[in-house]
Amino acid sequence: MGNQIAAFGEIMMRLQVPGYELLSQASSFNYSFSGTGVNVAAALSHLGHDTYLVSTIPDNPVGDAATSSLHKLGITSTWINRYGAYIGMYFLENGFGARASRVTYSNRLESSFNKAPTDLYDFNRISKAVDVIHFCGITLAMNDSIRSQMKNFAKTAKENGCLVVFDCNYRPSLWGESGYEAARAHYKEMLHLADIVFMNEKDALLTLGMETEEIDREKQLTDLLPTIASHFQIAIIAGTHRTIHTDQTHSLRGYLYKNNSFTFSKERSFSVLDRIGSGDAYSSGIIHGELHGYHSQQMVDFAVSAAALAHTIIGDSPLLSENAIFQAMGEGIRDVER
Amino acid sequence: MGNQIAAFGEIMMRLQVPGYELLSQASSFNYSFSGTGVNVAAALSHLGHDTYLVSTIPDNPVGDAATSSLHKLGITSTWINRYGAYIGMYFLENGFGARASRVTYSNRLESSFNKAPTDLYDFNRISKAVDVIHFCGITLAMNDSIRSQMKNFAKTAKENGCLVVFDCNYRPSLWGESGYEAARAHYKEMLHLADIVFMNEKDALLTLGMETEEIDREKQLTDLLPTIASHFQIAIIAGTHRTIHTDQTHSLRGYLYKNNSFTFSKERSFSVLDRIGSGDAYSSGIIHGELHGYHSQQMVDFAVSAAALAHTIIGDSPLLSENAIFQAMGEGIRDVER
Amino acid sequence: MGNQIAAFGEIMMRLQVPGYELLSQASSFNYSFSGTGVNVAAALSHLGHDTYLVSTIPDNPVGDAATSSLHKLGITSTWINRYGAYIGMYFLENGFGARASRVTYSNRLESSFNKAPTDLYDFNRISKAVDVIHFCGITLAMNDSIRSQMKNFAKTAKENGCLVVFDCNYRPSLWGESGYEAARAHYKEMLHLADIVFMNEKDALLTLGMETEEIDREKQLTDLLPTIASHFQIAIIAGTHRTIHTDQTHSLRGYLYKNNSFTFSKERSFSVLDRIGSGDAYSSGIIHGELHGYHSQQMVDFAVSAAALAHTIIGDSPLLSENAIFQAMGEGIRDVER
Amino acid sequence: MGNQIAAFGEIMMRLQVPGYELLSQASSFNYSFSGTGVNVAAALSHLGHDTYLVSTIPDNPVGDAATSSLHKLGITSTWINRYGAYIGMYFLENGFGARASRVTYSNRLESSFNKAPTDLYDFNRISKAVDVIHFCGITLAMNDSIRSQMKNFAKTAKENGCLVVFDCNYRPSLWGESGYEAARAHYKEMLHLADIVFMNEKDALLTLGMETEEIDREKQLTDLLPTIASHFQIAIIAGTHRTIHTDQTHSLRGYLYKNNSFTFSKERSFSVLDRIGSGDAYSSGIIHGELHGYHSQQMVDFAVSAAALAHTIIGDSPLLSENAIFQAMGEGIRDVER
Amino acid sequence: MGNQIAAFGEIMMRLQVPGYELLSQASSFNYSFSGTGVNVAAALSHLGHDTYLVSTIPDNPVGDAATSSLHKLGITSTWINRYGAYIGMYFLENGFGARASRVTYSNRLESSFNKAPTDLYDFNRISKAVDVIHFCGITLAMNDSIRSQMKNFAKTAKENGCLVVFDCNYRPSLWGESGYEAARAHYKEMLHLADIVFMNEKDALLTLGMETEEIDREKQLTDLLPTIASHFQIAIIAGTHRTIHTDQTHSLRGYLYKNNSFTFSKERSFSVLDRIGSGDAYSSGIIHGELHGYHSQQMVDFAVSAAALAHTIIGDSPLLSENAIFQAMGEGIRDVER
Amino acid sequence: MGNQIAAFGEIMMRLQVPGYELLSQASSFNYSFSGTGVNVAAALSHLGHDTYLVSTIPDNPVGDAATSSLHKLGITSTWINRYGAYIGMYFLENGFGARASRVTYSNRLESSFNKAPTDLYDFNRISKAVDVIHFCGITLAMNDSIRSQMKNFAKTAKENGCLVVFDCNYRPSLWGESGYEAARAHYKEMLHLADIVFMNEKDALLTLGMETEEIDREKQLTDLLPTIASHFQIAIIAGTHRTIHTDQTHSLRGYLYKNNSFTFSKERSFSVLDRIGSGDAYSSGIIHGELHGYHSQQMVDFAVSAAALAHTIIGDSPLLSENAIFQAMGEGIRDVER
Repeated sequence: MGNQIAAFGEIMMRLQVPGYELLSQASSFNYSFSGTGVNVAAALSHLGHDTYLVSTIPDNPVGDAATSSLHKLGITSTWINRYGAYIGMYFLENGFGARASRVTYSNRLESSFNKAPTDLYDFNRISKAVDVIHFCGITLAMNDSIRSQMKNFAKTAKENGCLVVFDCNYRPSLWGESGYEAARAHYKEMLHLADIVFMNEKDALLTLGMETEEIDREKQLTDLLPTIASHFQIAIIAGTHRTIHTDQTHSLRGYLYKNNSFTFSKERSFSVLDRIGSGDAYSSGIIHGELHGYHSQQMVDFAVSAAALAHTIIGDSPLLSENAIFQAMGEGIRDVER
Repeated sequence: MGNQIAAFGEIMMRLQVPGYELLSQASSFNYSFSGTGVNVAAALSHLGHDTYLVSTIPDNPVGDAATSSLHKLGITSTWINRYGAYIGMYFLENGFGARASRVTYSNRLESSFNKAPTDLYDFNRISKAVDVIHFCGITLAMNDSIRSQMKNFAKTAKENGCLVVFDCNYRPSLWGESGYEAARAHYKEMLHLADIVFMNEKDALLTLGMETEEIDREKQLTDLLPTIASHFQIAIIAGTHRTIHTDQTHSLRGYLYKNNSFTFSKERSFSVLDRIGSGDAYSSGIIHGELHGYHSQQMVDFAVSAAALAHTIIGDSPLLSENAIFQAMGEGIRDVER
Repeated sequence: MGNQIAAFGEIMMRLQVPGYELLSQASSFNYSFSGTGVNVAAALSHLGHDTYLVSTIPDNPVGDAATSSLHKLGITSTWINRYGAYIGMYFLENGFGARASRVTYSNRLESSFNKAPTDLYDFNRISKAVDVIHFCGITLAMNDSIRSQMKNFAKTAKENGCLVVFDCNYRPSLWGESGYEAARAHYKEMLHLADIVFMNEKDALLTLGMETEEIDREKQLTDLLPTIASHFQIAIIAGTHRTIHTDQTHSLRGYLYKNNSFTFSKERSFSVLDRIGSGDAYSSGIIHGELHGYHSQQMVDFAVSAAALAHTIIGDSPLLSENAIFQAMGEGIRDVER
Repeated sequence: MGNQIAAFGEIMMRLQVPGYELLSQASSFNYSFSGTGVNVAAALSHLGHDTYLVSTIPDNPVGDAATSSLHKLGITSTWINRYGAYIGMYFLENGFGARASRVTYSNRLESSFNKAPTDLYDFNRISKAVDVIHFCGITLAMNDSIRSQMKNFAKTAKENGCLVVFDCNYRPSLWGESGYEAARAHYKEMLHLADIVFMNEKDALLTLGMETEEIDREKQLTDLLPTIASHFQIAIIAGTHRTIHTDQTHSLRGYLYKNNSFTFSKERSFSVLDRIGSGDAYSSGIIHGELHGYHSQQMVDFAVSAAALAHTIIGDSPLLSENAIFQAMGEGIRDVER
Repeated sequence: MGNQIAAFGEIMMRLQVPGYELLSQASSFNYSFSGTGVNVAAALSHLGHDTYLVSTIPDNPVGDAATSSLHKLGITSTWINRYGAYIGMYFLENGFGARASRVTYSNRLESSFNKAPTDLYDFNRISKAVDVIHFCGITLAMNDSIRSQMKNFAKTAKENGCLVVFDCNYRPSLWGESGYEAARAHYKEMLHLADIVFMNEKDALLTLGMETEEIDREKQLTDLLPTIASHFQIAIIAGTHRTIHTDQTHSLRGYLYKNNSFTFSKERSFSVLDRIGSGDAYSSGIIHGELHGYHSQQMVDFAVSAAALAHTIIGDSPLLSENAIFQAMGEGIRDVER
Repeated sequence: MGNQIAAFGEIMMRLQVPGYELLSQASSFNYSFSGTGVNVAAALSHLGHDTYLVSTIPDNPVGDAATSSLHKLGITSTWINRYGAYIGMYFLENGFGARASRVTYSNRLESSFNKAPTDLYDFNRISKAVDVIHFCGITLAMNDSIRSQMKNFAKTAKENGCLVVFDCNYRPSLWGESGYEAARAHYKEMLHLADIVFMNEKDALLTLGMETEEIDREKQLTDLLPTIASHFQIAIIAGTHRTIHTDQTHSLRGYLYKNNSFTFSKERSFSVLDRIGSGDAYSSGIIHGELHGYHSQQMVDFAVSAAALAHTIIGDSPLLSENAIFQAMGEGIRDVER
């Protein structure tokens, strides 16, 4: 009933200070394993698909723990290689009110994934086995070897008739100074290969270097996205606009450009428990909607509902059933379910 | 100075996932023991009364833990039988914002309480020893044997001059399809025996099958309750109307029908930490007020204040002194008490 | 490279009081999911096989958690049905020194597994898909419907050429008074179907009602097992003899009867952290050894080494690689590995 | 079936560093409430008696917590006064192997109990209501007012026909330099009033200032105790000899002098989890045995078994049923109970 | 680059119930060490100064833990004496919504600090070594000996050219009935010695016994403070006005009187995680601003920003870098920092 | 009264799985900061010396936490640079009985310390300020730049009259294949500069490539060490011989070669709670003994006592007072200290 879906990307260990203490106050971490690919695969697994991660982790107890953790999230580990010695890690200190959450990366450049030789992967075989492959801009920022693996994989996937998904996900800290210029050509290559793209007006303006006379972000979006869709032959472009309020709540409005027309969700506001990974819940909602033939409004409403709920679940990986997301689409806040 | 008060009902083990994780994410539970009877007896014990539970638990380490826990709540265990092998249990996952709290019951139908033979209990002796006995609609939903024990006990209590309290507490999931019809006769029997009843307009409409032309819930209430009070000869009928807001706060308005007239509290709004058991705090407040001769307005204000505070205390059982409830009646939010 | 192995049996939730507190002292549990089938499948998954559980769990958050947990243990959940409302549970209080560990069962008789109708399972299809199927005497003790499912499954498996494994695992508390007589016929049926059997001299004497003039348990064993193997046409009979010492250490000696001859391991002594599930580690070691063509001495040494190590790992399910078990076979205690 | 038993003494808060960290390493405490009187009352409550503490605690949240905690231990709080502002506290760091456990007292001299005016207590009424009253040497060390209350209470108890129990329990750190001389007269007064006394040869030599030519502790005991029993007219004198081994185990041998003859238990050895409170388990065993008419050998074996088991339970207060103690008297170490 | 700053005051142990449980529900505390002096020294250490505490703690494991804790906060312990046996302690139960946080003090009057003889301290040597010394009204409330030490130290500090800081910090519970009268002369002496004073209109009206015809608290402030500054020759008087809202947020407005003119910050509103110690964050901000030559508006904005952020950090001691405080001055709520 | 002592080396973050779970079972770590230099400096700080670490950590929240942690251990951070982005990390899974503890390193080669440019350090200034500088073989294994810094620092220290301490501490995994040959020249350079050296017979045979005809490790030691001491002009060579038993206990025997003669401690046996860092406790004991003029027997007994106690304390860094170590030298196991 579900589809076969793979995601290509790094598995990172998240080390989270429990509660609201600072790293310099606490003495323990909760750990879990995440990454854009992990999050998308976990979300789609909970929506009923068979999901696979295409990645590389070390052959040591940390790699074992990562594998167990992915299994727990419902992801099949068949295409995860064991190679190298390290896993990328990041520290997370939860913010409170006026004090923002803080992410500190440990060394990911020397990780098993980022040092893995290309011949570890059999992209052709994987492409023949799945319907959809998901890529993201964070992986694209790593190094030349990874970039080449990623484009290679995307090309092979396209040739084999897979749906190619690309989440632009530009992270300034990974590309450094003059990063937009450095990234541009790589992004363009990926856009040429992609069927579904997640991006917003900033990606168009900064990463692609486009221009607009509009100032309002929504108008910029409606001005720029059609050009991109047509130029790169992209079937679906989608994303969200987020607003952060002063009372620990956020608002999200989803948008979708498909068949030459825009669809927007209503703006949803909600209390935030764990913000990380909510973007991946949105993409998963769109992918799922497309695979199940939802019409555009349903697709964008479903995806925003998934993203909103993802803020209420601890951990980067959204663990939501289709049913729970539909319920949350229609209703107000409910009393205890019993 | 306090009264002798007994409650008849099942003791359940609550298995609560700590924090905001899902059952499928976490690996530990906090456990406690609760039930409507437990909650009411615990609350009245903290208000200065001598309280007893009339119940049955297994003679094993789980039964020992339940006993210790009730003792800690200030409840005397003299009339708790040890029989059978199981205790009813339920799992609680805390909701957050748009994600509602979820209760999953384990098998309570085979519990010691629900399988206990009637001759375990000496209702006559208990009725002679106490002033008040509390019953509730959850117990009434269990099985024929329990229903018969309950009515028996209520009759004996009435004959011995006890104040009989009955909380309608209709739970659709326990009565199943066509539940209202199935429940009706049993509820009517209990209402005939009761002096103080907790119910709302839905109990009147659905369980008792009454009719009204009013649409607003408050108007339905004022239309229906006087008929019930007069028909069943009930001295006091009380309850609350709850409104759930989108920002993790609730509002409660208490009402009381006594001596042919209605009294309402102001509507109170408050942040919610643990919603379960707050209804039992309200009933306890009314019972305490009646025993201490509060006038109607004081009684309903006191009970709503107790219910509001109960939302700020973890666990099903409200642990509030009379003093703390009075303080909360008068004031706004206060700074640290030191 | 590994085999396809299924196990048939109930998934139970283990609620363990952390540390050494009593249930009546503590206020939290660690929970996990286990059962003989779970333990064997988890162990064999860590030894490189593809493992499946054939079972039934409720379609609610507890069932979701069980599924996640099995995935984490490396078990595929394809053949786990969702039906009914309850999961079997047991409470575990850790003993210390002179105070023994205590297991208290909650109601498992009404569990999803024990109430599941036979037509939920497609034993034929499963038997065609796997090489080995594992059954155990605990399942056999449940009720007539389960017994019939189990024998049915074993017959179908045999017909399809699967290796049938049966662990006698007689639990007196499950069969009640005159239990040995009640169980005898059922055990005999299973022994007729089985290729590999785990049993000891007590199973022969009590469950099968055999007689011997020997007094020493090892002599009883060598007297009785050959008769059983020959009568029921069993290829391998294996088991362990355990000795419990006063200083929190145990000793185990493994035995194996195959091709008309006995093989014994040396007696191994070791400190005990978590005793539950160590028998399942032993069976897994024998099954793995048989599938990989180990010679008899290697097989029994490997299995005892696996069982010994399983006592040093928390949880019922042994999580040991083949490599770790081989290491532990040869060496004394080692210093920190770094 | 049980007796009415009261204990007079201070309730202290125990602040225990979890695990094996030092106070300067950790950041949390587990807290509980204890004291010789608490421990004895809790133990006897679990042996089926109705037990009361006669004490004073502050009327604040700490006093509330102490009351809840005593209730949980099965102790009735009717005769516990609320007065003053402080509770005595002590810090406990668990030792490991060569590193001994460390107790650090906070200020107990200004505690509610130690500052309570005598007229808070109605010793006469309590003495009329109970069968047995327990006193201890720690209370005797506090201050003149407490000493006078204690002797007063003991006299009243004696006059009312209560069994008076006195545990010598001399703590050098509480009496300071020349403490034995300072304590002597007070101890003698208590011995004159007591029916059951717990003491050893050191109490005789140092506190009472007696002399003996024997060197071995057991011979000193048999030389000195008969003189004391006869001089002070004491029905029963009992105690234990402890030996501490290098492998985290202790040995205990119990003794009892009654009707002019000595009875000794076998020496029992056991692993130690929590040593504090084990002496109180011994006294409780003797008191229980005397009340139930055990013969001398049974009494001392039961008491030593209770003391041994108390070392395997966390917390100062032993929580053992009569049944569990009898089981532990007869058997070796057992496998999991299930 | 930083200054040498000392604070004189007691080090207390804070025993905080984790989460939102009551002391009578929970079984563990988180502990830390605090006090006005500790908080101010910790805050200024994180702002780049070398800070010292002048205090006395016991020479036992609790004193060791206090020392380690102060070191962790960045405070040098050179001038902390080891004397006496006790440390002051307080219990903290976190409030939630309508239920206020509750502080219960244990006995601090007999603490090492409050019983320390004057000759333990070499105030002259300390005064020569530092630039600033901080005192507070809580210390002034302790006893005559401490008051005399404090005034002595302040005089010596003044003579040695130190900047003398005095935080009025009047705590009614410490001075008892007629406390304002009792405190007045002592406060006046300290005001005569101080260069920087933290106080509000209530200190003027109640402690100093001044009068005003104004009713609004801000107008009272502007009416009374200039008189005080001129009478006592105080260079800077500063403080905050706090408003507590019903939704777990507070507002603060800072004020500063310097060079005959008032400066006010904007009123800032923020969610509150841990309110205790936020006043000390404000004082630290003012002291730091004065030492670094901030102009008045910058100083009061910086201090209010520090106080606002301190509400978002667990523990009494604010741990904020200058940079973090400046960031929080300018901006709205931000997304995750990564 | 104490000395000024510096240690040069990396600060690592230790991520320890709590209890006895595997990394793949657990979901949290306890973290702390350690390293040979940290451990030695912490131990000597608790023995009354002023200690400094000479190291480099990142200028981010992880670096802040490391600094707080070192402060808590009593180490002054004046000479710790902030540079680079990463800290070395290692994972620790506690072994139990037959299952050995497991250390898994994360990437330390790119750490701030290992990438720090030499000009960050002012070795000359540090050498003038301290009496003793400690180096170790782990640092020597890092890379050429670090090796050059280390030799440089040791030379400068020697020229400034500091006592140079060198702990050979050869870790095969850090030097790789043919590691002994690669390491030899570097070790020889350090030995020429050192006054106190920690090494054993394996260092002599393998790292220095010496030969002996003896087989027993103690005889090898007495054969080889005098030659080394004389060749490299080393005042003191010391170390321990460890034996690991099967019951979670170890034995240690210390040795010391000084003034042409050997001194041995008795062999001490003890239960092991945390083995890591015990070697650093031994070195700290020798250094402290030498600085305080202990005679040889006292020095080696003190050091072995410190090492034995260090096995009973959680964390890598031994936190023992001189007094506690002396107590442990003389006595057997003691009862609770109270």
